[in-house]
Amino acid sequence: MSSAWLLPEHIADVLPHEARRIEELRRIMLDAARTCGYELVMPPLLEYIESLLSGTGHELDLKTFKLVDQLSGRTLGVRADTTPQVARIDAHLLNRAGLTRLCYCGPVLHTRPAGLHGSREPLQFGAETYGHAGLEADLEVLELAIDCLSLAGIQGLVLDLSDARLLRGVLGSAAISASVLEAVQSALAAKDRAELEAIGAELPPAVRDGLLALVDLYGDSGVLDLARQRLPAVPMIEAALADLAWLARHIGAVHPAVTVGFDLGDMSGHAYYSGARFAIYGRGGIDALARGGRYDDVGAVFGRKRPAAGFSLDLKTVVGLVGFDGRRSAIRAPWSEDPGLRAEVRRLRGEGHAVVCALPGHEHEADEFDCDRELVAEHGQWQVRLR
Amino acid sequence: MSSAWLLPEHIADVLPHEARRIEELRRIMLDAARTCGYELVMPPLLEYIESLLSGTGHELDLKTFKLVDQLSGRTLGVRADTTPQVARIDAHLLNRAGLTRLCYCGPVLHTRPAGLHGSREPLQFGAETYGHAGLEADLEVLELAIDCLSLAGIQGLVLDLSDARLLRGVLGSAAISASVLEAVQSALAAKDRAELEAIGAELPPAVRDGLLALVDLYGDSGVLDLARQRLPAVPMIEAALADLAWLARHIGAVHPAVTVGFDLGDMSGHAYYSGARFAIYGRGGIDALARGGRYDDVGAVFGRKRPAAGFSLDLKTVVGLVGFDGRRSAIRAPWSEDPGLRAEVRRLRGEGHAVVCALPGHEHEADEFDCDRELVAEHGQWQVRLR
Repeated sequence: MSSAWLLPEHIADVLPHEARRIEELRRIMLDAARTCGYELVMPPLLEYIESLLSGTGHELDLKTFKLVDQLSGRTLGVRADTTPQVARIDAHLLNRAGLTRLCYCGPVLHTRPAGLHGSREPLQFGAETYGHAGLEADLEVLELAIDCLSLAGIQGLVLDLSDARLLRGVLGSAAISASVLEAVQSALAAKDRAELEAIGAELPPAVRDGLLALVDLYGDSGVLDLARQRLPAVPMIEAALADLAWLARHIGAVHPAVTVGFDLGDMSGHAYYSGARFAIYGRGGIDALARGGRYDDVGAVFGRKRPAAGFSLDLKTVVGLVGFDGRRSAIRAPWSEDPGLRAEVRRLRGEGHAVVCALPGHEHEADEFDCDRELVAEHGQWQVRLR
Repeated sequence: MSSAWLLPEHIADVLPHEARRIEELRRIMLDAARTCGYELVMPPLLEYIESLLSGTGHELDLKTFKLVDQLSGRTLGVRADTTPQVARIDAHLLNRAGLTRLCYCGPVLHTRPAGLHGSREPLQFGAETYGHAGLEADLEVLELAIDCLSLAGIQGLVLDLSDARLLRGVLGSAAISASVLEAVQSALAAKDRAELEAIGAELPPAVRDGLLALVDLYGDSGVLDLARQRLPAVPMIEAALADLAWLARHIGAVHPAVTVGFDLGDMSGHAYYSGARFAIYGRGGIDALARGGRYDDVGAVFGRKRPAAGFSLDLKTVVGLVGFDGRRSAIRAPWSEDPGLRAEVRRLRGEGHAVVCALPGHEHEADEFDCDRELVAEHGQWQVRLR
């Protein structure tokens, strides 16, 4: 039935050329977060299912692998998203009064892939601020997300802004079940007008009109004016539109190369967003490379509801868009017991050079490194020379 | 029964001061491996259980979390050890004729902790060579392990050498069940003479005498001479003792600060070792920090039995021994919409400085960074000055 070397669907090894690039991007992004004052945390892969999933919605539950803890007999989950864990760390372990900036980078597992070509093991990198309700925090994480993708070499960045309060404002006080809400969000994400009309037939006319307006509200800055005309004039919606205009203006000023647009019906991704939210696309990519926004309620389940904003991205998706470069150059060295050779090899490695020793019998093998130099004995001294 | 912020036993968050140190060690070790020509690979966390466990022994099976794949209905395992995965990559994905050097760094999960204070989520770093049967490969991975621990700042390294062929040579052709073999290995690891005598009562006298000799054979270089007298004079044992003498001599010559010793009965750790094996301890540590050796059979299940040698270590254990240093220095900056300020902040960050912006209302909060400098406007220009 199976060969021992076959992997499960949507699970893959990352081979050297790609792994090296991912490691480089990982360092670039963690360093970028550090220079903005974000402290690294490493939440565990495993938690009790209640901690991982409380308040995070049905979709994350379906995505989460469950297993039994032999030590406690209780059900554990393998994290499918790191943000609820970081909220827990902010709320309980750090428990700081002031602003807290945290970042992380590690694998998450999904029971099902996000798309046809999606991985069930994304390498999630993200950054989050806790404790500031103002738009400055939204702007800070958004700029960091843009900087990380730019530093990674993604060309032609497109930013799409939206806000979770728009849908909430449209729904107003209408009594809507969780399953209908999920159907509405799916239809909005798919821009499925027909489906929205079908769902809307059961809803108050004002709500139906609002939903049908939302699905068309995407494009450049003109969208905000159109939204003010077509969406209900309630304070929640007005505040959301004003915030989006403010964010768009600031990004436009500092990041002129980024195309700023709006997709006000885009409610895809996590259920925990509570305010402004964004998706960033790269040239040639179909899916969003990074998603983020405000999720003020995410720590509530841990007894500490703090303002929060952040973003996350999958390094494996990002590396797919930037591609890999060539082999790394290295120095080839023979193997011998000569202390002079061994000392010179150690010295060169200490300086950061890759020195690849040809072990006895392997002198004529092709090299995975680009060994453009070699270590040779000349006049009794070991010297590096071009090959 | 449970609070949402409680974690399972032997599972922990890694908080900022420790996470930063782990990340630093991770980079140091991956860079050390790269300068020796080891290419990074990233095997998946999840595999079909047959791939993860074939040929790796009962102990790894017990350690491995199992779950059901919704896509195939088959049983998956979360890796408890990365080496069988790297052997699979060498055998099938790379399939190179010559010497292959690979390294990795990522989490593994264990159903039960290794000891009272052990983590069930070690962060495993390791390096492996495939394709060279000679001792030069054993020496190379051993030296790399020593270098990684030295670069991490571990003081007083103690190297204990052993060889899987010694026990095999002592057992000879005696018919021994897998459970008796496991009991023998446990008793040897615990240096439990009484238990060995009890087990030995059922075995041929020569085997019993050999086992009782093995359990006492630990100490400095005199141990090898003693072993030649007390262990059976069979070729397998003679070859093992000669190899250990060669390795000890080379490590002594290049790493005079490392205390080289022998613990010939130490068969703890993975079941897949086939030749020389080593454990490295640090001053103040009880458990081995790194374990490695030769495991020529590990790729056999993937249809490609190649000579192999390598080591692995847990970065979380290593960081526990080197400790954490103080807070990182940073520049504190005010928040404003002034383009001049924002440009200067970006410039400083681009140079690698950590610049922490005090968002509005958070100007007087204590800082997690050591903000020894601040960005202030002087004569209409933003300048960094000492605080």
